[in-house]
Amino acid sequence: MNHAVILAGGGGTRLWPASRRALPKQLLPLAPGGETLLHATWRRAAGVSREVGVVTAADQAAGVARAVPEVPADQVLAEPRPRNTAAAVGLAAVTIAARDPDAVLGILPADHHIGDEPGWQRVVAQAFAVAAAEDAIVTVGITPTRPDTGFGYLEPGAAAAGGARQVARFVEKPDRASAEAYVARGYLWNAGMFFFRAARMLAELDRHLPDVGAGLRRIAAAPEETGAIYPGLTSISIDHGVMEKTRGILTLAGDFGWSDVGSWDALAEVRAADAAGNVAEGQAVLVDAKENIIHSDAGVVAVVGVSGLVVVRSGNAVLVVPRERAQDVREVVKKLEQGDGDAYV
Amino acid sequence: MNHAVILAGGGGTRLWPASRRALPKQLLPLAPGGETLLHATWRRAAGVSREVGVVTAADQAAGVARAVPEVPADQVLAEPRPRNTAAAVGLAAVTIAARDPDAVLGILPADHHIGDEPGWQRVVAQAFAVAAAEDAIVTVGITPTRPDTGFGYLEPGAAAAGGARQVARFVEKPDRASAEAYVARGYLWNAGMFFFRAARMLAELDRHLPDVGAGLRRIAAAPEETGAIYPGLTSISIDHGVMEKTRGILTLAGDFGWSDVGSWDALAEVRAADAAGNVAEGQAVLVDAKENIIHSDAGVVAVVGVSGLVVVRSGNAVLVVPRERAQDVREVVKKLEQGDGDAYV
Repeated sequence: MNHAVILAGGGGTRLWPASRRALPKQLLPLAPGGETLLHATWRRAAGVSREVGVVTAADQAAGVARAVPEVPADQVLAEPRPRNTAAAVGLAAVTIAARDPDAVLGILPADHHIGDEPGWQRVVAQAFAVAAAEDAIVTVGITPTRPDTGFGYLEPGAAAAGGARQVARFVEKPDRASAEAYVARGYLWNAGMFFFRAARMLAELDRHLPDVGAGLRRIAAAPEETGAIYPGLTSISIDHGVMEKTRGILTLAGDFGWSDVGSWDALAEVRAADAAGNVAEGQAVLVDAKENIIHSDAGVVAVVGVSGLVVVRSGNAVLVVPRERAQDVREVVKKLEQGDGDAYV
Repeated sequence: MNHAVILAGGGGTRLWPASRRALPKQLLPLAPGGETLLHATWRRAAGVSREVGVVTAADQAAGVARAVPEVPADQVLAEPRPRNTAAAVGLAAVTIAARDPDAVLGILPADHHIGDEPGWQRVVAQAFAVAAAEDAIVTVGITPTRPDTGFGYLEPGAAAAGGARQVARFVEKPDRASAEAYVARGYLWNAGMFFFRAARMLAELDRHLPDVGAGLRRIAAAPEETGAIYPGLTSISIDHGVMEKTRGILTLAGDFGWSDVGSWDALAEVRAADAAGNVAEGQAVLVDAKENIIHSDAGVVAVVGVSGLVVVRSGNAVLVVPRERAQDVREVVKKLEQGDGDAYV
């Protein structure tokens, strides 16, 4: 049976001050209509897969339960301690395989935005089908819309079954020139969506991360030992730990208005702009203002005579940064963490 | 006897969102150390004049009393309805003359900042003395530091007694070229500080604004009728109604770090800047930021990679505007007043 597994353990400081330690990106109401990204992911997944579970961190489990009350409690797996995505994916695989040995898993990041949901659901359904039929690991790659240097790329190779192609190689975040070359050559963005039979993934973990594989089998044999075993697993991403080392991975290209909402600047990919190119959430007064991104969770934000700025008011903090420097909000969070700004992070 | 009279009836939208209808500029803690401009004015005045009173609007009287608890209640004159400065000055003159017929009044705006307080006190003491000795109206003019087009100017004429000079004429807010010419020719800024014997001012009001003069005499004869008479007085500024029409006005030049704190940009005249030229009030995090003006009454304001901006968080509102457009905050207030932004003005 198909099992969608939403990975909802991330933090993310790049949407500070809306995102905080206690309020990660996937729990923010950034989807249209004020839906959280996590709930939107659940809703899309529930349209393709009868089973939808979530893997999250222990300290986020309560927030996750509030955000997706539709997910039964026994489908929310809480990592006793965060051990990165290889262990999290493995935990989902052993847990689901215990009750459904033929399970096909679809791993979905909780904090992305999809503009064309039916388009996404078509590709995901196909990825489940190819993973099951070929017993392959299938990744959905995003057709790039720009030579972004913030994403990993994957190089498609020979054609394979079900409209998929072989993955010739995974490439780390490139420099600008490489990114341009990749886009020209038809590389895809690696968006962290993977589909596979549980047994196949556990075999790959055994091969490439034997301590993780062994630990997971001990957890399968004695689930009540999860809290003792899991924190000792190697902390490594599924990309570095498994995908880049595994041969025969397939990819399906997806073009469905994907955004990782990776910075305030990306809010323009998620929200409609006004005639002057401003994207405003919450009450805003704009005078002679162009192409700004305004986000306010309370009160009014007034901007006069500025363009290309991000202005955020959220809780006890205000942020002003040019859109092209939106990534640098991490510097602010770092300063606050190093100083006495604990109340603000 | 000398009587300092602080005019504290103003509103002022140019420091929105700190200033509001219910919280005018003079009640904001903009003086160094968080002192209100009104209290700083009282403190300076109390150093030169044993008697210090305040004229304010009825709906500001409570706020004024809280800001300057040192002023006895019977020295706070509340206009039943605001009728501009000619009537307010006249009300102070008749009220004070009733108990001190020889009173010399010094009219002081409540919402200015003075950097060199001993310097200010020297000039003000001299202005009281010249006004008393010559039975003249004496205005303190500010030695300009730039060709500002936001102020009225006064042209000094022939030398007079006590180091004063005649005022040849008052000039309205000029265009840029005129302002440059005025500064080159030694004109002074009209800063609204006037000194005179009460009897002299009442005579000028009788001459130039006979209905105001007559109304004030009726108030002097029956103070309990103030509420009925005062609202009917002509509403006109003391500058337009009296000063520009009166011959023989004298001026003393003052150079004591004066600022009218007329916009957020002017906060740089009142506050020390850091090495990068940023002026910050409240908790601020600055990353790669130059020459910004930050003001926060709560929480933290973080700015990254911007220069020359005003960023204000005050109560339920946030403002972002380039310093050189700081005056345009009035457009925001207008928009809020015309829309449903009553909670924000």
